Amino acid sequence: MRDVAIVGVSQTKFGELWDKSFRDLVVEAGVEAIHDANMTGEDIDAMYIGNMSGGLFVGQEHIGALIAEHSGLAPIPATRVEAACASGGLALRQAIMAVASGYYDKVMAAGVEKMTDVVDATPAIAAAADREWEAQQGVTFPSLYAMMARRHMHEYGTTREQIAGFAVLGHKNGALNPKAQFQREISVDAVLNSTKVASPLNILDCSPVSDGAAAVVVCPAEDAKKYSDTPIYVKASTQASDTIALHSRKSLTTIESTINASRKAYDIAGIEAKDVDVAEVHDCFSINGLLAIEDLGFFKKGEGGQAIEDGLIERDGQVAVNPSGGLKARGHPLGATGIAQAAEITWQLRGDADKRQVDGAEIGLTQNIGGTGGTVAVHVLSRNK
Amino acid sequence: MRDVAIVGVSQTKFGELWDKSFRDLVVEAGVEAIHDANMTGEDIDAMYIGNMSGGLFVGQEHIGALIAEHSGLAPIPATRVEAACASGGLALRQAIMAVASGYYDKVMAAGVEKMTDVVDATPAIAAAADREWEAQQGVTFPSLYAMMARRHMHEYGTTREQIAGFAVLGHKNGALNPKAQFQREISVDAVLNSTKVASPLNILDCSPVSDGAAAVVVCPAEDAKKYSDTPIYVKASTQASDTIALHSRKSLTTIESTINASRKAYDIAGIEAKDVDVAEVHDCFSINGLLAIEDLGFFKKGEGGQAIEDGLIERDGQVAVNPSGGLKARGHPLGATGIAQAAEITWQLRGDADKRQVDGAEIGLTQNIGGTGGTVAVHVLSRNK
Repeated sequence: MRDVAIVGVSQTKFGELWDKSFRDLVVEAGVEAIHDANMTGEDIDAMYIGNMSGGLFVGQEHIGALIAEHSGLAPIPATRVEAACASGGLALRQAIMAVASGYYDKVMAAGVEKMTDVVDATPAIAAAADREWEAQQGVTFPSLYAMMARRHMHEYGTTREQIAGFAVLGHKNGALNPKAQFQREISVDAVLNSTKVASPLNILDCSPVSDGAAAVVVCPAEDAKKYSDTPIYVKASTQASDTIALHSRKSLTTIESTINASRKAYDIAGIEAKDVDVAEVHDCFSINGLLAIEDLGFFKKGEGGQAIEDGLIERDGQVAVNPSGGLKARGHPLGATGIAQAAEITWQLRGDADKRQVDGAEIGLTQNIGGTGGTVAVHVLSRNK
Repeated sequence: MRDVAIVGVSQTKFGELWDKSFRDLVVEAGVEAIHDANMTGEDIDAMYIGNMSGGLFVGQEHIGALIAEHSGLAPIPATRVEAACASGGLALRQAIMAVASGYYDKVMAAGVEKMTDVVDATPAIAAAADREWEAQQGVTFPSLYAMMARRHMHEYGTTREQIAGFAVLGHKNGALNPKAQFQREISVDAVLNSTKVASPLNILDCSPVSDGAAAVVVCPAEDAKKYSDTPIYVKASTQASDTIALHSRKSLTTIESTINASRKAYDIAGIEAKDVDVAEVHDCFSINGLLAIEDLGFFKKGEGGQAIEDGLIERDGQVAVNPSGGLKARGHPLGATGIAQAAEITWQLRGDADKRQVDGAEIGLTQNIGGTGGTVAVHVLSRNK
């Protein structure tokens, strides 16, 4: 198995991008990532596209071919990968595997979602839940995560303010990220007084409906210096599944697939949770950021709220979490998120993250979740070969 | 890169399966393939699911996790792959790559589509075309393939009867396949006198709307004899893209991505087109079967019609094409087709195809198309290591 490195990354601005189509977004991200890798389109051997629901959002499937054509990369193989909001993370995994296997040398993984072309994004998003057992009964994602939040408060005494603190942190970092959908700070009070969505979660606990794309170029680690002065090395790429329906889980306060995927990733990378300097975690709702920092092993179960309150996940804290602003402030175009996470960690490990730079970051991690944890992808990236 | 073998295959009956749900179908196919590989569920390390549009057909995305849960295989990684009607072929490719890379040892590739839960399947199927440039203008797949048929007749003098002959062949073989949707023969006259769909194509030139699933289990070639007395070896797995929109092609009578993918496959496998004993090709419409036998190099461009008329693709002909009945008679549950093709070739090369057995078949090929050729996957399989 060949080792793999990231040599090019990009992200479009995330937001309500009325002037850009689904295909425009991927092409913009793809071209920029190829340039960032000091390559031209002709260098790319294959591409993977992470996209949750082109079908329900823009009436378009067959997304690999669409993107290959519109980015001028046909006839190379182009494959769309889907795992709800973890589609991007899984596309990156397939790109890594394609290089590791020796099938291809230079592979692009891109992610995209165009969510603002429908009047109501909720029915499409609900397709990430179990349609027959959850969505058809009226369950939506805010309500699922609200149950997880309520249970965490009940079991561990986590406060409403601590949960809100994760969204506040996202906006604090997002204010420094020119590609973030929301570039302004918010307060805990603002979160607590914002419109109620599904008690205890308010609108400012929720990531937004977003358009956007991101892209990453990978190649064999041994060739990486040809394309980048600061290649970032993939130390582990893991994935785990769990029940798609929340009601089938043993616990509402632990995402088992995060534990499974991250522990395997630490083993493969030869590190421990405490070695991670910077992490991009999947805070589609504020409570999910809190669950992530516990389930990844950064803090003990039940102590995530206190860690947020104590500033332990700030950029200068014990572990810098979501320096990009995370899903809450950077935005969450579903299929793009896993790739945008890898782009952010790459910028951080290169030392290219400008005002939001985490000083001296050497080991980074991404955690990308589908649904309520039916799928989790974890990547460990490093400055050092 | 590790060599890979197929050690277990299965297919549900294809048809209008009102009594089975989307998830039921995959579980049925998956369990049978695992048993066929003399394994239990615990042996499987990862799974790939080919599915075109769970979103538009049954309102369900996040299909990997759904299937992992309902087949009892969670927490293993489960990844959905989509490329319209080539979704199955690409899922098989990813499974092969996952084993070749060393990431996993025993991997299932399954394919599924449940098309009869919607009142009209056409809008969902049209998502395989370019939504903005084709489908929104009213183009459907019968009309696209009708243009290709008309042009082939114009350029090469191909007759309407020759095109119909491909559908007749499918039904002749399908009549011997207990898992086929249509198990009865039809005549050229029946095709010519059936309801007009898009001139020159009639209803009996078109593959049906189908429900169904299929599954394949792959492992390293060096371990294959542990699981099967007659493992079938993957000699090549290739894929190519082309424009998704038909109007952007140089030719309407050649699917360039079939040429690209098949020539690369022949190179990798060290064979020529004439070495293929049995092939399952993508006859979503009769004309597409005709294009396939030309573009794969079995016959020269323009001579496919005569080859059909002369019986050269019958089971005892120069090359046995679609002994299963093909998409026309076996049925075409979109995401399942590429996997069902691999299952049929495996049965043929094992000598397990009962009444439809192609005598002495040693080298087989599958060709799985997305859209009008925006994606093509080709696999070369062999009895011999």
